[in-house]
Amino acid sequence: MSFNTFGHIFRVTTWGESHGPALGCTVDGVPPGVALAETDIQPWMDKRKPGQNKFTTQRKEPDEVRILSGVFEGVTTGTPIQLMIENTDQRSKDYGDIAQAFRPGHADITYHQKYGIRDYRGGGRSSARETAARVAAGAVARAVLARMVPALRITGYMVQMGVKGIDRTRIDLAEVDRNPFWCPDPVAAGEWAAYLDDLRLSHNSVGAVIEVVAEGVPAGLGAPLYGKLDSDLASAMMSINAVKAVEIGDGMAAAALTGVENADEIRMGPDGPEFLSNHAGGILGGISTGQPVVCRFAVKPTSSILTPRQTINTRGEELDLVTKGRHDPCVGIRAVPVGEAMMACVLLDHLLLDRAQTGGARGRIG
Amino acid sequence: MSFNTFGHIFRVTTWGESHGPALGCTVDGVPPGVALAETDIQPWMDKRKPGQNKFTTQRKEPDEVRILSGVFEGVTTGTPIQLMIENTDQRSKDYGDIAQAFRPGHADITYHQKYGIRDYRGGGRSSARETAARVAAGAVARAVLARMVPALRITGYMVQMGVKGIDRTRIDLAEVDRNPFWCPDPVAAGEWAAYLDDLRLSHNSVGAVIEVVAEGVPAGLGAPLYGKLDSDLASAMMSINAVKAVEIGDGMAAAALTGVENADEIRMGPDGPEFLSNHAGGILGGISTGQPVVCRFAVKPTSSILTPRQTINTRGEELDLVTKGRHDPCVGIRAVPVGEAMMACVLLDHLLLDRAQTGGARGRIG
Amino acid sequence: MSFNTFGHIFRVTTWGESHGPALGCTVDGVPPGVALAETDIQPWMDKRKPGQNKFTTQRKEPDEVRILSGVFEGVTTGTPIQLMIENTDQRSKDYGDIAQAFRPGHADITYHQKYGIRDYRGGGRSSARETAARVAAGAVARAVLARMVPALRITGYMVQMGVKGIDRTRIDLAEVDRNPFWCPDPVAAGEWAAYLDDLRLSHNSVGAVIEVVAEGVPAGLGAPLYGKLDSDLASAMMSINAVKAVEIGDGMAAAALTGVENADEIRMGPDGPEFLSNHAGGILGGISTGQPVVCRFAVKPTSSILTPRQTINTRGEELDLVTKGRHDPCVGIRAVPVGEAMMACVLLDHLLLDRAQTGGARGRIG
Amino acid sequence: MSFNTFGHIFRVTTWGESHGPALGCTVDGVPPGVALAETDIQPWMDKRKPGQNKFTTQRKEPDEVRILSGVFEGVTTGTPIQLMIENTDQRSKDYGDIAQAFRPGHADITYHQKYGIRDYRGGGRSSARETAARVAAGAVARAVLARMVPALRITGYMVQMGVKGIDRTRIDLAEVDRNPFWCPDPVAAGEWAAYLDDLRLSHNSVGAVIEVVAEGVPAGLGAPLYGKLDSDLASAMMSINAVKAVEIGDGMAAAALTGVENADEIRMGPDGPEFLSNHAGGILGGISTGQPVVCRFAVKPTSSILTPRQTINTRGEELDLVTKGRHDPCVGIRAVPVGEAMMACVLLDHLLLDRAQTGGARGRIG
Repeated sequence: MSFNTFGHIFRVTTWGESHGPALGCTVDGVPPGVALAETDIQPWMDKRKPGQNKFTTQRKEPDEVRILSGVFEGVTTGTPIQLMIENTDQRSKDYGDIAQAFRPGHADITYHQKYGIRDYRGGGRSSARETAARVAAGAVARAVLARMVPALRITGYMVQMGVKGIDRTRIDLAEVDRNPFWCPDPVAAGEWAAYLDDLRLSHNSVGAVIEVVAEGVPAGLGAPLYGKLDSDLASAMMSINAVKAVEIGDGMAAAALTGVENADEIRMGPDGPEFLSNHAGGILGGISTGQPVVCRFAVKPTSSILTPRQTINTRGEELDLVTKGRHDPCVGIRAVPVGEAMMACVLLDHLLLDRAQTGGARGRIG
Repeated sequence: MSFNTFGHIFRVTTWGESHGPALGCTVDGVPPGVALAETDIQPWMDKRKPGQNKFTTQRKEPDEVRILSGVFEGVTTGTPIQLMIENTDQRSKDYGDIAQAFRPGHADITYHQKYGIRDYRGGGRSSARETAARVAAGAVARAVLARMVPALRITGYMVQMGVKGIDRTRIDLAEVDRNPFWCPDPVAAGEWAAYLDDLRLSHNSVGAVIEVVAEGVPAGLGAPLYGKLDSDLASAMMSINAVKAVEIGDGMAAAALTGVENADEIRMGPDGPEFLSNHAGGILGGISTGQPVVCRFAVKPTSSILTPRQTINTRGEELDLVTKGRHDPCVGIRAVPVGEAMMACVLLDHLLLDRAQTGGARGRIG
Repeated sequence: MSFNTFGHIFRVTTWGESHGPALGCTVDGVPPGVALAETDIQPWMDKRKPGQNKFTTQRKEPDEVRILSGVFEGVTTGTPIQLMIENTDQRSKDYGDIAQAFRPGHADITYHQKYGIRDYRGGGRSSARETAARVAAGAVARAVLARMVPALRITGYMVQMGVKGIDRTRIDLAEVDRNPFWCPDPVAAGEWAAYLDDLRLSHNSVGAVIEVVAEGVPAGLGAPLYGKLDSDLASAMMSINAVKAVEIGDGMAAAALTGVENADEIRMGPDGPEFLSNHAGGILGGISTGQPVVCRFAVKPTSSILTPRQTINTRGEELDLVTKGRHDPCVGIRAVPVGEAMMACVLLDHLLLDRAQTGGARGRIG
Repeated sequence: MSFNTFGHIFRVTTWGESHGPALGCTVDGVPPGVALAETDIQPWMDKRKPGQNKFTTQRKEPDEVRILSGVFEGVTTGTPIQLMIENTDQRSKDYGDIAQAFRPGHADITYHQKYGIRDYRGGGRSSARETAARVAAGAVARAVLARMVPALRITGYMVQMGVKGIDRTRIDLAEVDRNPFWCPDPVAAGEWAAYLDDLRLSHNSVGAVIEVVAEGVPAGLGAPLYGKLDSDLASAMMSINAVKAVEIGDGMAAAALTGVENADEIRMGPDGPEFLSNHAGGILGGISTGQPVVCRFAVKPTSSILTPRQTINTRGEELDLVTKGRHDPCVGIRAVPVGEAMMACVLLDHLLLDRAQTGGARGRIG
């Protein structure tokens, strides 16, 4: 069952609401003997946390993580790790309309329809604030991966903001940390700043496409047929707030290819099989090939905008609603570290799952 | 765990290989008291089965389903339903190169790397033949849904073949059954026939995009945060052979929208909330809104083609490989009924899951 | 997977160590709309908490529960409920021998063998202190059950302490709360006080048998064949620290009965079937019959005793070990509220699970 | 979810009814590369199969297993193994009363109450015939265990029939196969024959206690806290038809021990820790110690007896019912190979689960 838990062996259960006293997650199935401290987690939290520049929400949250269990004398013990983040900037305010009205594009109406009750403060459980817990769990996964697969490297970046994409010939991963958009193309980053400013000032918002690449993934990860690496990635990414599509490798573009074009031909290199292309995004039959695992997802524009939109309230009355507050004009920006975290969690989970069934043994080639 | 099982409550465990004696699935969690017979399942099998025209593999399989358990005097008993399909056309042949060589684009190399052994006959477990079991399970789900939600209607069709899309203004669902491509646009269907013939005769293949729409889905289905309706659909569709991307609602295109454009505004209609658009594809915050659930997925081109491709074998030797045999030039065609089946399974699963937690009660509006 | 989670739909994930900063649990799958506050949980915590009399450990823990999520304006929202209990009396001390030596009868050696590392302070994760989280979860289950099945009543009591049992003809449930042993037989309770005092003063401890009875359980709960009500109860009770056996109905004694004796004959009463006896303990074929569900479990004597026992340490050195500290001479006493809590959790879980598959409908009789 | 599946990694899903065309199971999570054929499974089936002597049901079933998937060229491939057993001796007969009446002690009434419909032929899904599938799955587990832990040895035997126990000083495991009761005490076996004959001829039946011992179990197996080795064994054994109690080590008798008596003291032997006793039954804190794992379970007397018993039918009418047919006078006899099979499945599952989290590494001692 998976109301609030994801993963098979490395299992993360998140809890908490946007404006409750705290939120967090229980991370279970962590291998024992891995060095772990709050300082290993905090940098990833800081990458996601709000209020860092004018392109993200002005809510100020330090997002300080506390480890409450599962670590003893600086090392994981194999028991569940509880990570707690206190909410400090839940402004007391009059929720007025919001308490009864359904903000278009938000989960307000569906939570009401399903549960008959909802915590309307900041979206409650459906707030993107929940992704702080994912990033914390992802940091734990990274710490374990760093030990089990030292060569593994996970990098997320934005490849499209609204109607503006990047020029892939200009991709430079060193650029990613140098602009507020995690954009690998410095030219595009400059254009996006102006573009997003305009949108923000016109009380609008915009969507984005994020790409997450994992290099150094061992071949053989994935549990066909219903725990395939790609289907688990699809589920993980689609579960992030506002995501509407997930692509692996060529993704939707694969539909337009011919079989001759799409075949990733294989040659024998000094260290084993080498592929001449990576249309597959590093996954065949749900199992990793050893090539980079490439995953993209589309984030819809922030639904909270200052432009009035038509809606109804719980009494069935029609009204025009303006969503005031502190909102990200492009929520996709902060989805970058979240996508990385989900990739880390899924890969570690499959690494553990694979050694359960196969012991991590690999069929030889050559 | 999910090696070969999907679903939370309505759980389907598939088994079997392409060229083994039989394949099938165990369908568990089926509500009791639903009329069910082989004749309720067979029409859906026939829709997927191979050899129906020159655009699909010439393997001849009757795909006759037998119900071995879980049904008594024509009615489901609540115990597991075993569905078995015997393989009848597993031609005895010399597998020659294929037994040792890895067909590019196929799971041959990854199964070898993971398991150290693979049933190379027709792709073994990784063959799309496994989807016959999914269609059978989907037929059971449809029988239950027909009783629990009579107004529900699931329709799949192809909206793109290779570089050729449809004209959405010409969509006519009555056309879907009238051409071999499940194409809702009769003009496109005609063009596709010539296009695919050319590709087939030039020893090539092509990808496709499938759209599956479910109308009449009750509001309130979906188990946030990690059993969201959309993340479960993403996982289900991505687990189908050759699928490389999954979209909900506007999908990738949502990234290019502004918040003003993307908001599905809400008005109050005579029977409850009415949305003025459906960019969300019927799902907000992972929970169904009551609008049509719209899901699309991209299928890569068939990897088995008669054009030689470079590859290696288990001994690490390089070779050029032509994949002879009886293959679909556009495997996306037969993915249409499979996508419908997965939609049916996911919806029923969430209907059952929802009544577990909420009892199926709904928050009132108005 | 179930490293630290139990339940199918009503799922409880516990976390925390005996001497860490806090412990608690995430309770997921709670139906929405149920009134819940800390004051609903605290009385059950108080029943289990240590230091209440000379027969339980002198560790002083207020065991105050905080609800951190999942409740809004005093009502459950259907989102995960995080319950946290801070540890306040983790005395700083020199763990000396204990840090390296394995206390006989404890999990010290197996945690070391499995994980290679263990939090040795008070047993760490393997401490019975973890059961505080179970009791908190059980209180949530009780609150939901009180609303869904008002007639349901769960009562636990001790029926044997060491070699001394009760006289079942003297059972009076009103007595249970009147003595420190939750003993329903006032005469036995008096004898046990002297018996346990002797054992305690002679640096010894003793085992116990607990019985938990649930009256008012609806017929039809249980998910055959591998989520049977009795197999889930067996798993739940056996997972409590120090439990070595679980019985349903007549339990081990059923082996000595004949079929003629064991048959619970059925008559038709004014409100439906009535059984003339309850050897089955309210469960047939893994499904509740509507009779009282009767479950017993045996708790071994506390392993921490002041009498020296032979053991080894991590260096493989042999030594004699005395386990100092604040220990329960009969840990079975505090297992009573824990057993009740597990019964509540399992029953609610099955109530929810049943309505998933059957909708809670029942086959009519008469 | 676990309607008809057990296990975490090594997962078995059983299906089929007593009088349907076939029954069987899907065994998933099997490591690849293990030699397996029908001939490895059949001997265990033969041990359980009915009709072997006058002390078991006279139904004649060859219980021939067919492997339909998951094995290629005599070796497991890591894909699901489907095992099918056709029912050949489902006598056509008039079920008369049984179709509507509820046999006391059977699941007839609870299946009716839960599902509103039941396959009344031979008990349908609730028949002990389902255990044939468990034995088949257990044989697969044994084949894998034989390769992964060659020293492991699982032995089941009966230690009590009705009121007659064995003399433990006379236990000789070589005797187990020499009598129809799997009794390790030859003197008791002789007495039981006369005792059971009397019961059978007087139209009665009797219960039994089975003990299953696993020697050579590595230390470190078990997933605390809710997948403890003992709680999983308790669940597995309690799920067997007619089982009413499960004990680990001293079981219920542990309640009567003092802490001084119960402590299994530890010394250092040439190969590692050695315990001076095994009250714990090889499990501490839910994790195996390396000592023999000792599990016992009580089986109630066969409910189908020729002595009339009072009951009701679906119309609510009272009647006296005699259960004619071919029944085991002591169904505990055939539970012996079933208990062994469950032990094998649980141990393999935990072996795989353990290597997922810990990689099978072990903390050193000495």
